[in-house]
Amino acid sequence: MQWRRMPAAFKSQRRRRSWKETQLSSSAITTSSPHLLSMDFSIRAANLDDCKDIARMIMELAEYEKVSDHVKVTQKDLEQDGFSKNPFFHGIIAEVPEQHKTKEGYTKIGYALYFYAYSSWSGRAIYMEDLYVMPEFRGKGVGKALMSKVAQLALAAGCHQLNFTVLNWNKPSVDFYLSQGSFDVTATMGYHCMRCEGEALKHLAQL
Amino acid sequence: MQWRRMPAAFKSQRRRRSWKETQLSSSAITTSSPHLLSMDFSIRAANLDDCKDIARMIMELAEYEKVSDHVKVTQKDLEQDGFSKNPFFHGIIAEVPEQHKTKEGYTKIGYALYFYAYSSWSGRAIYMEDLYVMPEFRGKGVGKALMSKVAQLALAAGCHQLNFTVLNWNKPSVDFYLSQGSFDVTATMGYHCMRCEGEALKHLAQL
Repeated sequence: MQWRRMPAAFKSQRRRRSWKETQLSSSAITTSSPHLLSMDFSIRAANLDDCKDIARMIMELAEYEKVSDHVKVTQKDLEQDGFSKNPFFHGIIAEVPEQHKTKEGYTKIGYALYFYAYSSWSGRAIYMEDLYVMPEFRGKGVGKALMSKVAQLALAAGCHQLNFTVLNWNKPSVDFYLSQGSFDVTATMGYHCMRCEGEALKHLAQL
Repeated sequence: MQWRRMPAAFKSQRRRRSWKETQLSSSAITTSSPHLLSMDFSIRAANLDDCKDIARMIMELAEYEKVSDHVKVTQKDLEQDGFSKNPFFHGIIAEVPEQHKTKEGYTKIGYALYFYAYSSWSGRAIYMEDLYVMPEFRGKGVGKALMSKVAQLALAAGCHQLNFTVLNWNKPSVDFYLSQGSFDVTATMGYHCMRCEGEALKHLAQL
């Protein structure tokens, strides 16, 4: 795979630096795979102008996961929550040149959202909330390139873990993640994801 | 339960404010339950001086979960990662007055760690990394008070979800969380926790 390596200065950033110190500008994380299976694409930091396409792809992912009615987040939410002074998440975008755009005219064809997290055992961590590539661009290394970029950002911020969740019926995704060296924490250690939301959350807060 | 409510000014903070805006000083989140089952305790924001006790209790929790050899985080890590300019986590502490201290002399008898997160379906979220109460202080509402405080902080920051994980063999904890209105996302929706770490993470970053 002809993946252009990050510059040495980027890779040398070590543990114990705050995420602000290691946060990167849009241009700094831009990279490209010019000859990957005859398809150009680039990975770069998301910016405010990408929120419309991120919102579109969040809905596409939810439709694939058969839960599109669960999506409450809007383009405006993404703009406010991801691109204000203290963002709740960060994003990266996979983009193809104009000549490879979809029949609908889209050039932004994949994304990942992530935020910084913490493990009381292992310390600094990164959590990948979403990883998505549009169906017609799958199998060309775009998902792997997006996930690799998240891993690079994790290491640059001194994180020891890249955490995420996957639907266990989504075998192509499970297989992809296992092939990248990830392991199933639920299956191997018995951890279950739990949630309190809605009226239950309000009730809990009033105890 | 004689739980002193948060002041109205606190509760009125709504969605769309950054977590910095809604972050609270140590004194602002202090509250107490003066007559709860004949035991005084207070819940307050953790500060730098609490890291020694948090590190002790992280180890106690890991011993309970039978994985104390997994704990790599030190007091110094907690100080650097939780109390620098852009912290990776926040904490709250449950404390008893001197007359209720343990035979070892501890007055800090429980804690919760949390950080802000994001759901691409539901938006702003809070993730509770740990919730722990020392064994001799269990059954007195301390855990519930800690979790309630995390829920208050979540709502104050405009979060719609309180997320966490639990070991499925830890039935007392599972039952406690279910009794608070939480649900098991793994059991009901099929989400599995996944992780990439160590050499696999470094390899992934080099693709």
